[in-house]
Amino acid sequence: MEFGESLRLVRSRKPLVECITNIVTVNDCANMILAAGGSPAMTMDIREVREGVAGMQALVCNMGAIDYVDSMIVAGERANELGIPVALDPVACGTTELRRTQTRRLLDCVHFSVIRGNASEIRFLAQGGKTGAGVDVKAMDEINENNVRESGEIVAELARRLNTVIAVSGKIDLVSDGRQTVALRNGCATMARITGSGCMLTSLAGEFAGADRENVFRATVACMTMMGIAGERAEEKRIRFGTGNASFRTYLIDEVFNMEPEDIDAGIRCEYL
Amino acid sequence: MEFGESLRLVRSRKPLVECITNIVTVNDCANMILAAGGSPAMTMDIREVREGVAGMQALVCNMGAIDYVDSMIVAGERANELGIPVALDPVACGTTELRRTQTRRLLDCVHFSVIRGNASEIRFLAQGGKTGAGVDVKAMDEINENNVRESGEIVAELARRLNTVIAVSGKIDLVSDGRQTVALRNGCATMARITGSGCMLTSLAGEFAGADRENVFRATVACMTMMGIAGERAEEKRIRFGTGNASFRTYLIDEVFNMEPEDIDAGIRCEYL
Amino acid sequence: MEFGESLRLVRSRKPLVECITNIVTVNDCANMILAAGGSPAMTMDIREVREGVAGMQALVCNMGAIDYVDSMIVAGERANELGIPVALDPVACGTTELRRTQTRRLLDCVHFSVIRGNASEIRFLAQGGKTGAGVDVKAMDEINENNVRESGEIVAELARRLNTVIAVSGKIDLVSDGRQTVALRNGCATMARITGSGCMLTSLAGEFAGADRENVFRATVACMTMMGIAGERAEEKRIRFGTGNASFRTYLIDEVFNMEPEDIDAGIRCEYL
Repeated sequence: MEFGESLRLVRSRKPLVECITNIVTVNDCANMILAAGGSPAMTMDIREVREGVAGMQALVCNMGAIDYVDSMIVAGERANELGIPVALDPVACGTTELRRTQTRRLLDCVHFSVIRGNASEIRFLAQGGKTGAGVDVKAMDEINENNVRESGEIVAELARRLNTVIAVSGKIDLVSDGRQTVALRNGCATMARITGSGCMLTSLAGEFAGADRENVFRATVACMTMMGIAGERAEEKRIRFGTGNASFRTYLIDEVFNMEPEDIDAGIRCEYL
Repeated sequence: MEFGESLRLVRSRKPLVECITNIVTVNDCANMILAAGGSPAMTMDIREVREGVAGMQALVCNMGAIDYVDSMIVAGERANELGIPVALDPVACGTTELRRTQTRRLLDCVHFSVIRGNASEIRFLAQGGKTGAGVDVKAMDEINENNVRESGEIVAELARRLNTVIAVSGKIDLVSDGRQTVALRNGCATMARITGSGCMLTSLAGEFAGADRENVFRATVACMTMMGIAGERAEEKRIRFGTGNASFRTYLIDEVFNMEPEDIDAGIRCEYL
Repeated sequence: MEFGESLRLVRSRKPLVECITNIVTVNDCANMILAAGGSPAMTMDIREVREGVAGMQALVCNMGAIDYVDSMIVAGERANELGIPVALDPVACGTTELRRTQTRRLLDCVHFSVIRGNASEIRFLAQGGKTGAGVDVKAMDEINENNVRESGEIVAELARRLNTVIAVSGKIDLVSDGRQTVALRNGCATMARITGSGCMLTSLAGEFAGADRENVFRATVACMTMMGIAGERAEEKRIRFGTGNASFRTYLIDEVFNMEPEDIDAGIRCEYL
C-alpha cells in the first residue's frame, strides 16, 4: 500500500477540520493542521457546533476539553448524520470517574472513524470502559518488542468492536482497522518531552481521514508515519544545534510543512502483524 | 503622511491593551503586543472587565471568544464612556446564526474605533449583518487588482456608516476611515499558513489606536504595513533556512520586535484610492 | 547550601505537576515543566480535580485563571490533606475587587508551600489583602539596590505570617522562608518582553517543591536561579542571532532543558540578607 497518497490528498483537498480540543495545545494543533495542508476551525460553543460542523470535512474530539463533551456529542451526532469522519483523542480517559463516565457517554452517542491514544488510554477502552475489569490487557501497559503481537490482537479486537480504526502511539505505534494491523517504528523519545505530541497526532488523524475518507486505515498509518519521520528529522536538528524541547516543537511542525508524500513511503518502518 | 510615527508613539507610550480574545491564538497576541512595545492584559471575566478596562489604553474584542460577548459588551461600553479606543475582530461573523446574532448585539452596544477582518467578514458587515441581502458586495469575495477600487468604495461606505476605521486584510489590504481609503500591498502568502495572523493584526490595531488615538487611520495603516513588512522579512528567513510555518510564526513576531519606525515608511506599498 | 541538588531531584523524581492555570501561557508552562524534567497535567474541571490531584507530586494555582478559583480551593484542600506542596501565583491580585476577594478566599482555605509574584502582587499580600492599608510597604514598589534590605524584611515577615516561602521576581529577586532571606541577581530585561515569564516561574516553583519537599526554600532559590541563568543564556543567543522576543521564549525553555545541576551553583548570584 502506498501511504503517501493520503498526504497527497490532504494537500490537494485542503480539508477543513473542526476541533473541539483543549486549551493547552490548541495553538499547536491548529498550526499542525495548517502545516499538513488543511485548515483548522476551533469553535466549541454548543450553540453553534451543530451548524458549524456541516461545512467541515472532519471533526476532532479531544477529551482534554472535558468540559466540552456536550459540544462533542452535538457536533459528533451531526457529523455522523452527514458522513463526516470523526476522530477521538481519549485523553486520560481512565484516570478519574468524570473521564470514565464522559468517555462512555461519548462512545455511546458518536461513531468515531479513528481513535488515537496512548497505551493506557486504549487499554481502558479495550476493557470496555471498566477499570481493572474485563479482558486481560496487561500486555498493553507499554508496547515493546515482547508484547507487540499480543497488543496488536487486543487493538484489532477493539477496532472490530467499535467499528473504527484504532491507533496507539508510543515507542512502537500500532494501527488496526480490525482486519489489518501494523506496528510502526518511526519517531523519537523527545516527542514525549513536549506537550501536545498526542493532540497534534489526533488532529492529523482527523485531517487525513477527512481527505482520504474511503481509506481511513491508510490515512491513519500515513499521518502516524509522517509524524514519526518528522520527529526523527526534528531530533537530528535538535542534536545538531544543541537546542531543547521548545525548538523541537517548532522543528516538528516545520518538518510536516516540508514533508513530501514520497517521504512517507521512503521512511516508513512498518510491519504487518 | 508618515506612518512610522504611530510605531514611535507605541514605543514611547507603551500602551496597556486589554484583550478579550480566543484560546487558540491568545499567547501569540500577547507576545505580538509585547513585541510592538506595549503590554497585554487578557482578563475576560465579566465580574471584573468593567473595572479592569478603566486602567487600559485600548480594548480588543475578538469574536473567536464567542462565549465572552457579554464581557466584550460590558468592557466595551465602559471603554466608550472613558474614551478608550476599542478594536473589533469579527471572526467568522457571518458563518453561523449565533455569530450573526452576537455580531449585531456587539455593534448595537459598542462603538469601535477600528474593525479588522478578512474580506468575507467585512462583506458580512457591509451587508448590514444580513446574509445574502442588501448592497451588492460580491466585489469583495477576495480583493484583487480587478475589484480593488469597487471594494474600496464599499469599505469607505461601511466606515462612514459605523463611524470607524475599517481594515480588510488579504493579498491586498484595504484601510478606510470613510474619507481616505488606501490599498496596501505588503505581506506574503505564508501568513495564511499560520493560525493567528488575523488575531495578531487586530491586537496590533488596538495597541496602535491606543497609542495614537488622535489618528486611528494612521495607526491602522501603520500596523497593517508593519505586519506586512514583518511577513516579507520572515518569509525571506523561512526560505533561506528551509524551515516551515512554525518557524515563520516566530520570525514574524521577532521582526515586529526589531521593526524601526523608519522601516514602515521605507517599506510601505500604499496606494490612495 | 548547594541549590543544584533540587534540580537533581527533579530530574530523578520526575514529579507530576497539576496546574490550574490561565489560557494565555498554559502551553509554555507545560513545556517548561517538561524541560525541567517533570510532567504536567492541566486539568481544571471542578468535578475531577479532587480526585486528580491525589496522584500528583505538586499543585500550581495561577490566579490568571480567575474563573477557576473554586477548582483551586477543592484541589488545594485535598493537596493539603495529602501533604502535597501547593504553589500560588497571585496574578494581578490587588488590581480589581474580584481579585482581591478571591485572593482572600484562596488564602483562607488553602495553605501554600510557596507563593511567587512580582513586587506589586507580594506588596498586596503583605498589606493583608487590603489596598493602601496596613504596614508601610512602599519600599517594594520595585526592588532595587536602595530598598532591597527593607523589602527583604517585609518578605520575611509575610513568609512567617503565612508559614510559606515567598518569592518576589523582578530585576532583583527575593526569596524568604521567614528565617533565611536571599537576594538573587540573575536574569535579564527581555524576560519582561515575553508573556508568561512569571507563570513559568511559578510552575517551576511547584515542580521543584514537589521534588524537594523537605526543603522548599532550597527548591525555590534553585528554580528562580535556574530561570535567571536560562534568561541570561537566552539573551546572549538573542543578541548573537539578532532575533526577538518570540525566539527568546524558545531559547529560554531550551536552556532549562539543557541546564545541569552544577550550572545553578556555578552561576548563582546570591546574597544572604
